[in-house]
Amino acid sequence: MRHILVIGAGKSTGVLVDYLLKKSSKENLKLTIADKNLENAIALSQNHENARAIQLDVFNPEVREKQVQLADIVISMLPARFHIEVARDCVRFKKNMVTASYVSEQMQELHEDAVKNGLVFMNEIGVDPGIDHMSAMQVIDRIRERGGKMLLFESFTGGLVAPEDDNNLWNYKFTWNPRNVVTAGQGGAAKFIQEGQYKYIPYHKLFRRTEFIDVKGYGRFEAYANRNSLKYRSVYGLNDILTLYRGTMRRVGFSKAWNMFVQLGMTDDTYAIEGSQDMSYRDFVNSFLPYSPTDSVELKMRHVLKIDQDDIMWDKLMELDLFNAHKKIGLVDATPAQMLQKILEDSWTLKEGEKDMIVMYHKFGYEINGERKQIDSSMVCLGDGMLQTAMAKTVGLPVAMAALKILNGAIKEPGVQIPIKASIYNPILEELEDYGIRFRESETPYLGYNPLSL
Amino acid sequence: MRHILVIGAGKSTGVLVDYLLKKSSKENLKLTIADKNLENAIALSQNHENARAIQLDVFNPEVREKQVQLADIVISMLPARFHIEVARDCVRFKKNMVTASYVSEQMQELHEDAVKNGLVFMNEIGVDPGIDHMSAMQVIDRIRERGGKMLLFESFTGGLVAPEDDNNLWNYKFTWNPRNVVTAGQGGAAKFIQEGQYKYIPYHKLFRRTEFIDVKGYGRFEAYANRNSLKYRSVYGLNDILTLYRGTMRRVGFSKAWNMFVQLGMTDDTYAIEGSQDMSYRDFVNSFLPYSPTDSVELKMRHVLKIDQDDIMWDKLMELDLFNAHKKIGLVDATPAQMLQKILEDSWTLKEGEKDMIVMYHKFGYEINGERKQIDSSMVCLGDGMLQTAMAKTVGLPVAMAALKILNGAIKEPGVQIPIKASIYNPILEELEDYGIRFRESETPYLGYNPLSL
Repeated sequence: MRHILVIGAGKSTGVLVDYLLKKSSKENLKLTIADKNLENAIALSQNHENARAIQLDVFNPEVREKQVQLADIVISMLPARFHIEVARDCVRFKKNMVTASYVSEQMQELHEDAVKNGLVFMNEIGVDPGIDHMSAMQVIDRIRERGGKMLLFESFTGGLVAPEDDNNLWNYKFTWNPRNVVTAGQGGAAKFIQEGQYKYIPYHKLFRRTEFIDVKGYGRFEAYANRNSLKYRSVYGLNDILTLYRGTMRRVGFSKAWNMFVQLGMTDDTYAIEGSQDMSYRDFVNSFLPYSPTDSVELKMRHVLKIDQDDIMWDKLMELDLFNAHKKIGLVDATPAQMLQKILEDSWTLKEGEKDMIVMYHKFGYEINGERKQIDSSMVCLGDGMLQTAMAKTVGLPVAMAALKILNGAIKEPGVQIPIKASIYNPILEELEDYGIRFRESETPYLGYNPLSL
Repeated sequence: MRHILVIGAGKSTGVLVDYLLKKSSKENLKLTIADKNLENAIALSQNHENARAIQLDVFNPEVREKQVQLADIVISMLPARFHIEVARDCVRFKKNMVTASYVSEQMQELHEDAVKNGLVFMNEIGVDPGIDHMSAMQVIDRIRERGGKMLLFESFTGGLVAPEDDNNLWNYKFTWNPRNVVTAGQGGAAKFIQEGQYKYIPYHKLFRRTEFIDVKGYGRFEAYANRNSLKYRSVYGLNDILTLYRGTMRRVGFSKAWNMFVQLGMTDDTYAIEGSQDMSYRDFVNSFLPYSPTDSVELKMRHVLKIDQDDIMWDKLMELDLFNAHKKIGLVDATPAQMLQKILEDSWTLKEGEKDMIVMYHKFGYEINGERKQIDSSMVCLGDGMLQTAMAKTVGLPVAMAALKILNGAIKEPGVQIPIKASIYNPILEELEDYGIRFRESETPYLGYNPLSL
């Protein structure tokens, strides 16, 4: 039997464990599911004969080290900042490791040690980062093998609500960490390249410079730019590319409406509002509007936003019950972003049985034999309910597949890495298709940003 | 003879030295003017019999300590971050000290030592901070002595160009550190209180939430909120006040036009623009606009700003030669704010003979014997040319006066302090009147923010 230690029994771990348990007899796998909260681990172990659940606090070195020693491979599904505790044990006890998180500096520092010991430390193998890397590199490598030169790469991902449950005015519900949604785009101007020119968008304009994206069978989406589109430029080998843009997808209209919160200052996460605990939703809104002894909060709001009462923007605000003077926020020393999140969670939390959706869209522009061409590639994954969410599937499945392939020696190049090599992305993308996670490609004329110059 | 050591022969030091040298015979003063650049010190010493100029690098402890030991009092006109080097010597060698800068944490830590040694460390005694403290506290204390209760305090200061030289479309020229003007308001939301309600304005809205202020004889001004209006709330004894607002004054229309730069992201000081050195003014502007193969930078700009060609906003941009494709910025690894500053300095630098102006305006609302009243108090100081600027006078004179009064024992309360006590502000405000720095008061009905409820 081979032992797999899975640490962290959070939202995405269920699908991952399912995958491995279903293969456990055939593949001779024993799973140890570890969580700070034993009940979470027990729930996932499903009383399966090849699973056991244990309590594990990642900051308790005794238990952690013991469990790592017993394992053949370790999967860390902990919040990203905790991986390093596990990773250092893995170096020490010579175990392979898999995470779905961005490679931290601390993690990167283990690269030499991992190589020296022949260990695979696979990271960024969830959905975004993860499936985006794999699906993009597969096309980019194919274009290059044919002798093509990359001109443009744009990549968009969105975590949204499935069409059948898309029933509010925002066409949006929280399907993952709400905090990341509320603070998205903060911390500096968005930076990207268009036709060889560096472009910058300040945070307060981010949600007004969107692009449209049409996905066959799913209609139209919009995307706003990620903060750093250039992060993977050299990793993907795109140093000379003319256009490089990464973005986040929403349904059309979301960004324009979200921009109201940005403009008012409600998404700020850098200071605490005085007396936040006792404030009503209405008080919160009023903090960002000028004082008036006579005008209502509603009128001040419409005036500041320059919208009329019959504007759909106004309906979107009303839907959130934003002007309620009786509902209290109830958070102590909270930032505007935290208070806004609380208000939004009332409206945007998935109800029992509601399904989520992951959408990914890549555009590849290239030149081959003097001709300019474009490939568009898209993937839509729908959730199957509260446990098998699209997010859990697209994060959990590639992690599980990578872990098994490492265990079986199919992935063996050592070091701290991300899945950008054909030997990794080809088998995993192929297997993901069995689970309905499939990219559809279409060739289109090269549009780029200079359609008239063709 | 009493020895005064003046360190830092910058813009405001000339007026300060003038003041002291004119009194040097009568008051038995010897001045040592020290600067990193000896020529600056020599220029200010005017070959006066009671002045000597020396070269002094504040980070050379040998020279610094020797000079501090020789002095009876030390005036530091260095950039604020360097005062602490001098202040520690002053504690060690038991010398009084004066600066025009905000009290830093490091400076505050010397308070106990200063008190123990009977030393006066007077800070924030320039114009803003300085004359604002003194002129405000004089009225606030008077209201309280009469039994009044403070309801409202609003305070505004602006460094502007004198009306006779106010000849550009922005009604603005740099009269002090341009960098502070370009980055004004950044680093977090502006916070203040209106009628007992905390209000917050995000940076990107700061220049659209202005107030008008009329100054008799000088017409109308506007003000935008300072980042932290509540900084002196407890120091001024205004913990229960209903309205507390501090702002920066500009001529009407400046803020609306400045907001164009803010909206585009041109004032951002947190990241460097790629290839800044080789960019033209036009390239700089284009970095913040969407790519287009056909549309001109001008048209994109008007579209993003939603203005027409005959809008005065557009004329303001044209006046700055912002779309010039031949003028290079020439700064390496520069932030947007640094690049914008460079462009503005072309247009907004005072020419030989042009004069500046300092404007200050306070509103005091209070209740006395069941009646609500308001006092408005304003001061305008005009520069007398390049050396006797309004900024140099309003910063240099109170510093010089404070130094002499400390030397003469008229100000003697020891410790790290700011000028908020009657024993300090009364004599200094009185003497400032001899130099034309005079507040004009008027009683008005209490307006506050609830005029209809009276």
